[in-house]
Amino acid sequence: MGESLNGLKRTNMCGELRESNIGEKITVMGWVQRKRNLGGLIFVDLRDRTGILQIVFGEKINKEAFEKSDNVKSEYCIAATGTIVKRESPNTEIPTGMVEVKGEYIKIFSESQTPPIYIKENLDAAENIRLKYRYLDLRRPDMQRILMTRHKTAKVVRDFLDEEGFLEIETPMLGKSTPEGARDYLVPSRNYNGKFYALPQSPQLFKQLLMVSGYDRYFQIVKCFRDEDLRANRQPEFTQIDMELSFVEQDDVINLNERFIQRVFKKILNVDVKLPIERMPYKIAMEKYGSDKPDLRFGMEINDISEVVKNIDFKVFQSAIEAGGSVRAIKVPNSAKMGRKQIDKLVEFVKDYGAKGLVWIAYKEDGIKSSISKFLTEEDTKNILNKLEAVPGDLILVVADKNKVVFESLGALRVHMAKETGILDGNDEFRFVWVTEFPLLSYNEDEQRYQAEHHPFTAPMDEDIQYLESDPGRVRAKAYDIVLNGEELGGGSIRIHDTKLQERMFKVIGISQENAWEKFGYLLEAFKFGPPPHGGLAYGFDRMVMFLAKTDNIKDVIAFPKNQNAFCPLTEAPNVVDESQLKELGISIK
Amino acid sequence: MGESLNGLKRTNMCGELRESNIGEKITVMGWVQRKRNLGGLIFVDLRDRTGILQIVFGEKINKEAFEKSDNVKSEYCIAATGTIVKRESPNTEIPTGMVEVKGEYIKIFSESQTPPIYIKENLDAAENIRLKYRYLDLRRPDMQRILMTRHKTAKVVRDFLDEEGFLEIETPMLGKSTPEGARDYLVPSRNYNGKFYALPQSPQLFKQLLMVSGYDRYFQIVKCFRDEDLRANRQPEFTQIDMELSFVEQDDVINLNERFIQRVFKKILNVDVKLPIERMPYKIAMEKYGSDKPDLRFGMEINDISEVVKNIDFKVFQSAIEAGGSVRAIKVPNSAKMGRKQIDKLVEFVKDYGAKGLVWIAYKEDGIKSSISKFLTEEDTKNILNKLEAVPGDLILVVADKNKVVFESLGALRVHMAKETGILDGNDEFRFVWVTEFPLLSYNEDEQRYQAEHHPFTAPMDEDIQYLESDPGRVRAKAYDIVLNGEELGGGSIRIHDTKLQERMFKVIGISQENAWEKFGYLLEAFKFGPPPHGGLAYGFDRMVMFLAKTDNIKDVIAFPKNQNAFCPLTEAPNVVDESQLKELGISIK
Repeated sequence: MGESLNGLKRTNMCGELRESNIGEKITVMGWVQRKRNLGGLIFVDLRDRTGILQIVFGEKINKEAFEKSDNVKSEYCIAATGTIVKRESPNTEIPTGMVEVKGEYIKIFSESQTPPIYIKENLDAAENIRLKYRYLDLRRPDMQRILMTRHKTAKVVRDFLDEEGFLEIETPMLGKSTPEGARDYLVPSRNYNGKFYALPQSPQLFKQLLMVSGYDRYFQIVKCFRDEDLRANRQPEFTQIDMELSFVEQDDVINLNERFIQRVFKKILNVDVKLPIERMPYKIAMEKYGSDKPDLRFGMEINDISEVVKNIDFKVFQSAIEAGGSVRAIKVPNSAKMGRKQIDKLVEFVKDYGAKGLVWIAYKEDGIKSSISKFLTEEDTKNILNKLEAVPGDLILVVADKNKVVFESLGALRVHMAKETGILDGNDEFRFVWVTEFPLLSYNEDEQRYQAEHHPFTAPMDEDIQYLESDPGRVRAKAYDIVLNGEELGGGSIRIHDTKLQERMFKVIGISQENAWEKFGYLLEAFKFGPPPHGGLAYGFDRMVMFLAKTDNIKDVIAFPKNQNAFCPLTEAPNVVDESQLKELGISIK
Repeated sequence: MGESLNGLKRTNMCGELRESNIGEKITVMGWVQRKRNLGGLIFVDLRDRTGILQIVFGEKINKEAFEKSDNVKSEYCIAATGTIVKRESPNTEIPTGMVEVKGEYIKIFSESQTPPIYIKENLDAAENIRLKYRYLDLRRPDMQRILMTRHKTAKVVRDFLDEEGFLEIETPMLGKSTPEGARDYLVPSRNYNGKFYALPQSPQLFKQLLMVSGYDRYFQIVKCFRDEDLRANRQPEFTQIDMELSFVEQDDVINLNERFIQRVFKKILNVDVKLPIERMPYKIAMEKYGSDKPDLRFGMEINDISEVVKNIDFKVFQSAIEAGGSVRAIKVPNSAKMGRKQIDKLVEFVKDYGAKGLVWIAYKEDGIKSSISKFLTEEDTKNILNKLEAVPGDLILVVADKNKVVFESLGALRVHMAKETGILDGNDEFRFVWVTEFPLLSYNEDEQRYQAEHHPFTAPMDEDIQYLESDPGRVRAKAYDIVLNGEELGGGSIRIHDTKLQERMFKVIGISQENAWEKFGYLLEAFKFGPPPHGGLAYGFDRMVMFLAKTDNIKDVIAFPKNQNAFCPLTEAPNVVDESQLKELGISIK
């Protein structure tokens, strides 16, 4: 039977008590981490969100409290009152370990069954058990630290943006479904049977409307939704830090966001981010790192060796070059000794990225081995190794194909080899880079037309507008991503505010005026009334917290996440509903 | 054709320029409020979110700028550069009215058609036009001030709660539908065809789980959803300030929230809220004000005159008293002169609240008139007037019925008469009151059983637990509402944390253990593992902002609201979707 507070007041949190508190009579409240019965004394480790404190009950300290304390078990919720004393055998592993409480009073608020998971750090339990008993999983100190970091990060973000004149403005959750983009979550309407709201994939159009409305600087920390098949580290509902600014150009957005990032990492991790952050055009990122999310914490850049190998009598190389592709290589240090089986796995690895094969050259101390040694003269080999500035121990990995395939496969292989070789072990660097000058358009082979890479409101770079019709693939966008350690932290663009340019853009991507109006009518209508130059950026907040809390599992930074099937093992959502509910909505289950 | 910034930087916001800036060369950007051509000069009033600034273009100042400025019209988006000078004929109505800008350069970012609504304060336009062109409506300075107040309020709320050790923790939007409460918005699941998520009506169960998890102090400013027929000042999606605390009793929650309210009103309106805020038991609120949301800015309390009238030979009074009801009255000052037609309207008014009639006594200077004069002796009349301490000019309004009907009709009539008599005109008071000691249970006549007034986790008052089974209607709850000027600003309760008491509660309201588990299983399961004593409170954030921004229309405090049919005239949501989308969700339209 649980007791009530009945006027009992907590005086302190468990984790804050120190030697300076010795002599104070305190009352703490929390959960029993463990109870031990030693030498006629009962030791209770009491836990709250700030830490653990030891309380000692003894017959000589207080008989009633001593006897009652013997009833408690792990995870009972209790209060204890007593005096802080110096601990005879200090525990240097916890901040309160120099003191303990002489327990003079105990109150048992509630009992606990034996929990199905351990309440401890670094728990190694099955995910579905952790999610089903999420309220116990969330008692674990590491999970509590993460959610506290998340709270603190949101606070720092809001403080910064408020100081900078941004207004947080809420945009609707019940919006309109647009056929472009990812799959929408739909919400059937009761007032208009047969019609549906859609949950927002992002507040993009609303934030642009707010710029048209003159709000000047908008932000929002906001839930967004995508009904996609869940890959690792994707959740059906996720949180964005979304911002938009008027009367700005790309440099203004970037400069402000550099100070933003600096503030967040300083306040949360006490890490100094040096400004300005490096900027890298998309083209360079692809050529050197085979990725628009380059991880700059390590080298292993991609090298074009087409010139060096063009005269080698090896058909794979020659046909790639003749078809307008290239032959490129990365150099993996200390890996020449790699076994044949391991290398075979790398060949399989690049096939997932469309490469037909992988050529390797192992520069061993005792000689050079290669998968194509019979095609290479000694001179050829030397030229390749020279071009790559290879040293003994290096493993050279070569892909010859269309550039797209070469970049993607070597880019992925580069990251894979960094993991395989442990090159980043112990590396605690935060390496930021802005990737800029993205292509505005990409060619959709299936539909035989250009399409917007980002969205059709992204502005082209001024110097490339002239090519919009004549060479659309050449046009670069005023778009920018902020990349951290090889992951996209956020991205944005300057938007088109000129209706003539907007019309040209729609024409190039083959959207008729009529069609554009059907999809984006209210934004185009708004743009008739003096839209300002504007642009913005959005961060994945969950991803940001993962970096700040140093976890690589998105479920760790969300209090109540879904599993890979978008199911919640705790509440068992989604679930069946009453037929009467469906009837009101005018829908039926097929 | 719109121009780009091309490196032009804004130096100032329009509204901030003063005489101290005279001589400075500045660049401002915004929208043309109006343009006038006077005596060979062109005057442009430029508007941004901070205010309006006058810019003068002239042939002698800068010929090119002068000529270009003649092209602009209302709502064009432009930049202007020039020098701040003293204004020859100051405009004392705007803060920048002592200065103007000599326009040396102008850039036209975009043109504007003539807007369908005026961009001005206190616009009197049809609601659906305002909502359809919301991006123009939101340009109006009064709307901008409101959304800035909303932003600032959210900031003050978060700052306060962060200081007090609260953690903002996001709870899921895609939750589980529960058959209790209001109607859920449903979201069909693609992974589990035939099953549905529900959008949250409140994060109630999740916040209690977070207390079980030891987070100690939780809050969230969060969107909630109810698919109800929309009355005035209701929106399908609305925002709550939701909080929950562990190891607290009612006084702790109230004391903290008094400081919270004090902070918010001080920071936003510079209004001092005196603490402690008055507390009033539900019973008193009903008896004196006929409402659990009493407006204490004016008197006109309800008086029980049963004793005085019990011997009057008037059947309506006697049968009400005999049936266990009562005869009660309010006294309306300066209203004895009210015409017969007006009084007839009052009779109709109370009928909406179930009263069968309304007795009136007009205490005029030249004598007393009454609807029941033929039943009243002079003595009777005198006794009634004495009981009410009436003075000449007073109008006495009397209802005799069951207490419930008497309270509700007189309570509504009291508020109505305050409006009719203009008693609150010019009153800018913020009158808070805590209503406490709510009934835990109410009797549902249709289902012939008691039901939870708030929700079944609300704790009964300790001294009333003994009556839980023997006299359920007598049991008061540890529940509290904060009421401001007759409107509920927020409400909450201490929750049950004792499983035995929880079981008794379910039994009293006729919910079997099995049924309780089906509905609230995961919370009951969580309560097996040491739940702490806890309680909380939630504010309607939209309502709070309405008070702070001094508007009585909820649509004014929401950037993109829905209309009365839960329809958005701007985006035309809800709308039809592709058949393929429905097919994936396994649903069809009936």
